[in-house]
Amino acid sequence: MVLRDVRAGVRNEQAIAMVIESLRASLGEKLQTGQAFREQHAHTTTYLTAQLPDAVVFAENADDVKAVVRACAMHGVPVIPFGTGSSLEGQVNAPSGGISIDFSRMDKVLRVSPEDLDVTVEPGVTREALNVYLRDTGLFFPIDPGANASIGGMTATRASGTNAVRYGTMKDNVLALTVVTADGEEVVTGTRARKSSAGYDLTRLFVGSEGTLGVITSITLRLQGIPEKISGGVCSFPTVKAACDAVIMTIQMGIPVARIELLDEMQIRACNAYSGLSYAERPTLFLEFHGTEETVAMQSEQFAMIAEECGSDGFRYTVDAQERAKLWKARHDAYWASRALRPELSALSTDVCVPISRLAECVAETHEDILANNFLAPIVGHAGDGNFHVLVLFNDKDAADIERVEAFVERLNRRALSFGGTCTGEHGIGQGKMSFLQEEAGPALALMRSIKQALDPKNIFNPGKILRSID
Amino acid sequence: MVLRDVRAGVRNEQAIAMVIESLRASLGEKLQTGQAFREQHAHTTTYLTAQLPDAVVFAENADDVKAVVRACAMHGVPVIPFGTGSSLEGQVNAPSGGISIDFSRMDKVLRVSPEDLDVTVEPGVTREALNVYLRDTGLFFPIDPGANASIGGMTATRASGTNAVRYGTMKDNVLALTVVTADGEEVVTGTRARKSSAGYDLTRLFVGSEGTLGVITSITLRLQGIPEKISGGVCSFPTVKAACDAVIMTIQMGIPVARIELLDEMQIRACNAYSGLSYAERPTLFLEFHGTEETVAMQSEQFAMIAEECGSDGFRYTVDAQERAKLWKARHDAYWASRALRPELSALSTDVCVPISRLAECVAETHEDILANNFLAPIVGHAGDGNFHVLVLFNDKDAADIERVEAFVERLNRRALSFGGTCTGEHGIGQGKMSFLQEEAGPALALMRSIKQALDPKNIFNPGKILRSID
Repeated sequence: MVLRDVRAGVRNEQAIAMVIESLRASLGEKLQTGQAFREQHAHTTTYLTAQLPDAVVFAENADDVKAVVRACAMHGVPVIPFGTGSSLEGQVNAPSGGISIDFSRMDKVLRVSPEDLDVTVEPGVTREALNVYLRDTGLFFPIDPGANASIGGMTATRASGTNAVRYGTMKDNVLALTVVTADGEEVVTGTRARKSSAGYDLTRLFVGSEGTLGVITSITLRLQGIPEKISGGVCSFPTVKAACDAVIMTIQMGIPVARIELLDEMQIRACNAYSGLSYAERPTLFLEFHGTEETVAMQSEQFAMIAEECGSDGFRYTVDAQERAKLWKARHDAYWASRALRPELSALSTDVCVPISRLAECVAETHEDILANNFLAPIVGHAGDGNFHVLVLFNDKDAADIERVEAFVERLNRRALSFGGTCTGEHGIGQGKMSFLQEEAGPALALMRSIKQALDPKNIFNPGKILRSID
Repeated sequence: MVLRDVRAGVRNEQAIAMVIESLRASLGEKLQTGQAFREQHAHTTTYLTAQLPDAVVFAENADDVKAVVRACAMHGVPVIPFGTGSSLEGQVNAPSGGISIDFSRMDKVLRVSPEDLDVTVEPGVTREALNVYLRDTGLFFPIDPGANASIGGMTATRASGTNAVRYGTMKDNVLALTVVTADGEEVVTGTRARKSSAGYDLTRLFVGSEGTLGVITSITLRLQGIPEKISGGVCSFPTVKAACDAVIMTIQMGIPVARIELLDEMQIRACNAYSGLSYAERPTLFLEFHGTEETVAMQSEQFAMIAEECGSDGFRYTVDAQERAKLWKARHDAYWASRALRPELSALSTDVCVPISRLAECVAETHEDILANNFLAPIVGHAGDGNFHVLVLFNDKDAADIERVEAFVERLNRRALSFGGTCTGEHGIGQGKMSFLQEEAGPALALMRSIKQALDPKNIFNPGKILRSID
């Protein structure tokens, strides 16, 4: 179901050629058609087959984006927005060819208001660059999906990551957008007011639409004050269930934990090997608390009691910045640590999200599934949200292995749906999860299709993602 | 601009008669056409002219809702959902007649999960009834718009209120919905997972759509743990600016204040008179902190220092439940206190929301406008969100007075827009704010119109609200 969906679409060679000719005339060197550029802008970081765009436009401003959209709309040619290419479900592939819009040159912070705790950025600003820019203001942007993704890409994918349990996802942190719509004009979807009841929530409609409804040209974000004090720590548990019980109690008690990450035995083993650490090879939680000296101490103590009650070997925490950095570096390197288990294999990273009361059961069943099939497949999860990832290593030259992985992913997604969950907490649908979205949404898929048809009648915006063009 | 928009639409008498006949046959006594029922279900609590529906259906389950939607879709007759009738911008009026669906009999809590901190309710459950139901679980639903509104109505209006500064608005607290769409079928818009990147955010599209895209039949909500300790207090400031500065500093420092409400001099005078209190008649903040004994004390002390720095006369706070109840009763009675200033006059309650850095300026200019026009018009605001209300008293028999009020509301809304704000933070558009939505959204209004057209091609869902049917 997964790899099968990465099928080629219908290419309109003549139309594509006309668009390229027309854009070359108007945009000059900003348009590139060299093979290397095209390869860099197809899907490079995932297990999916690369499907190259026909040209890449390095947009420098909204007018460049409008020019691309207008030319593509006139000829019915696909437009594929490209941030940093760190998406995981084939979001930047070009199954029917078309024009990739690269946002790396639209990387300016347009304005910041420390009084209002908000900022407006161009789509190409990365989250790390934004936080470097903000440092002197005492503010930071908390959403951290791991990769140094672009804010445009994070918005389009409704990204979240380790801090979401406390600060929410992109859905909660985008105040307003500007978007180039199908008629080639730019619209503003909201204001800088922190809340509004003024009509349909267009902002939330574009957040998570993966470039299929329009092209985002600027993003206004909420910011947070940099915590006065941060403490972090680790503790291991005899079982995944015990670890998840600790998570549930923490959330129920309203302890405002900033990060609470679950790593299974195999993931810990991989991290130990990769990062030269010596954590106990048991289900483990990595935690972080944000606040004042008093509040982080209080929260850490409260959690330590919960952890003890759930059979942990004891929660050790530290406010030392270097020690914390080492801990979170290991967590952020989990992907590479897992891949290093067998560097010659390919990796499929998939995510699901379930109500936290079902997390333990869902992880445990998945764990058994992995053992039963002798997969190398570490599990790591944003446990406070009920969201977890499995990184399955497999031989992409071996059809039987591919089939086994696809069947596993199918079981995993159906398991999540059967537990009242969703087929993706943060990676998005892209090409890889269209079948599961169909199962999850059921009749609601027709509504999504109506909206797509209404806002993109010629199906030029990132076709073949979220919704199959040919269904 | 305001009252003018409450114009009658085109009525299709024959179609309405056919729908009533058909529904009477299938629903029997659940359908009522008596004048008293019709009057109760037109707009009763606001300044707007009542426009009566032709019949009221007391729905008892989703099948009843489907029956109404199917009959109305077949004949092109309006469907107007009705919760408790506490909306403020004409949301339940029936400008073209049609069928009002009353949800008071759909008042069941369908399920609750204390482990996941979520609950699913029918639309007719009121927020007070929900919190009574939840009491034994140690959880509560924090959104408090003042009125004891229904959860369905609060969802449809994207309501918020005093607690939004800490807990967000309905946008942030609805996990999923079931909705009867234009084809008379029920769709599910999301799962119980706390986050998802699975396709378009249909949940957020229906939240705040004011019944214009479909009829909500159940709502899954996030819950919060009842705080171990609550402290509340009051302090007054020499100027509105000083009070707003204290608010900005509180938010910037990340103090997780649960409520921070601004009342101007006139509002305090009205509250003193109505509730027998003796607060200083100066711009005043009412506050509440949620947490443990230690954290609420810490937060209250931190705020006291800020208040002092901003020239307050001193912040007095209490954890005594009775004293707090008295304080918030006075705040919640602000509407009635204001009306009691001149009981013979009509009242127009309007709200705008601006970035908090502009709140002081926006309130001060509005205050001068009120003085210059000799209005009786107290101001009360959810200051932490930059959201404030003006209750203008006027003589609805006097055309000149109506015109003056309309001009004032127009100036107020344009002022908010010019400060980067929105024409409504929480009351919604309804009939009363369609002109201002047009000004605020600009070209984005066309997107809203496309969405409406896509999901409600026959314009049966609450026509003449949010978007003018005849534009």
